[in-house]
Amino acid sequence: MSAPDYTLYLVTDDPKAYSSSIFDGVEAAIHGGATMVQYRASGGSGRYQYETALRLKERLSQLGIPLIVNDRLDLALAVDADGLHVGQNDLPVQVARRLLGKQRILGLSITDPRQLESVDYSIVDYLGAGPVFATATKTDAAPAMGLDTLSKITRQSKVPVVAIGGINLSNAKSVFDAGVHGLAVVSALSRSQDPQTTARRFRLATSS
Amino acid sequence: MSAPDYTLYLVTDDPKAYSSSIFDGVEAAIHGGATMVQYRASGGSGRYQYETALRLKERLSQLGIPLIVNDRLDLALAVDADGLHVGQNDLPVQVARRLLGKQRILGLSITDPRQLESVDYSIVDYLGAGPVFATATKTDAAPAMGLDTLSKITRQSKVPVVAIGGINLSNAKSVFDAGVHGLAVVSALSRSQDPQTTARRFRLATSS
Repeated sequence: MSAPDYTLYLVTDDPKAYSSSIFDGVEAAIHGGATMVQYRASGGSGRYQYETALRLKERLSQLGIPLIVNDRLDLALAVDADGLHVGQNDLPVQVARRLLGKQRILGLSITDPRQLESVDYSIVDYLGAGPVFATATKTDAAPAMGLDTLSKITRQSKVPVVAIGGINLSNAKSVFDAGVHGLAVVSALSRSQDPQTTARRFRLATSS
Repeated sequence: MSAPDYTLYLVTDDPKAYSSSIFDGVEAAIHGGATMVQYRASGGSGRYQYETALRLKERLSQLGIPLIVNDRLDLALAVDADGLHVGQNDLPVQVARRLLGKQRILGLSITDPRQLESVDYSIVDYLGAGPVFATATKTDAAPAMGLDTLSKITRQSKVPVVAIGGINLSNAKSVFDAGVHGLAVVSALSRSQDPQTTARRFRLATSS
């Protein structure tokens, strides 16, 4: 596929966190300007997670928005997602790339600039750098890296960098100005009462 | 591959449950007569689970013993396992079969005879029926079905049935006599101080 637009990269939250449903919440954010969606499976059975991912994929396909699945390569393959995102402690990227095929997007989390040394840019399409700020969404997150470290990563990376972790409307512009290709937003979009308006404000913050 | 030997089907336990290591415990059980191994990932990171499955696969390949991965199709593909086992609430078997290919073994858990009606025998190689007895290993297990219900399932199934759940040396013969092709054993093997001797006793109990 052509290079994806990472500008406003929505990461799904616990399905119970949405004021309506995860599907309506994601769709509203897309109407407000979210450009990509990552499904982070949490809670429920494997069947439930599969069915949720499948329904997201169907909706996003109609809207022309790529769906990335977090960590779970089986779900990514099962619903024919557009890509997979893995962390430093998930499946090795070499294994993920082999099973994903060449066409799908593969993203890798970076929590420290030293991890850049081992990145194989021939198989990784983008980096997710963070957490930039402290976050309550991910209980096993690494320490916050801050904007200076984020800038260092964006300068050194040979692929697009998406920032993640504690990003909200107040800090969105400063994060974008660190040289990232996009902002990955979890709770500020998913827990918004009005995800469409919130997404639109994120887009305004990153275009001014 | 040729039809597997389901006779003594070891299911791995929490790696911390082994008196030595999961690898030594599994290998000892195989030397005692275990004929198949299912890796049930539990605890640790995705990377840890992948590395554990990979090392099991390497050891089992040398011993000519099939490795089945429980639930996690991504791990099964990543380590080129011989098969996958799914439950009623995991990925649908149709999806699992599509992604596994035709050659790998695919098993499905059955907790109630009524579930037999929806089994597609053209894509499922064996059934895991249980829990036969109450078990402490799986906290989300269905109620124990008992030997009469197990017999009903073995009579109706068109593929081999492996019994699971609370199987130990005392009840092994009565379970085998219910018409199963094999006994799936978790804690009685994995938590044994001497898995080789325990496996040998299971084999004796099912051959007399």
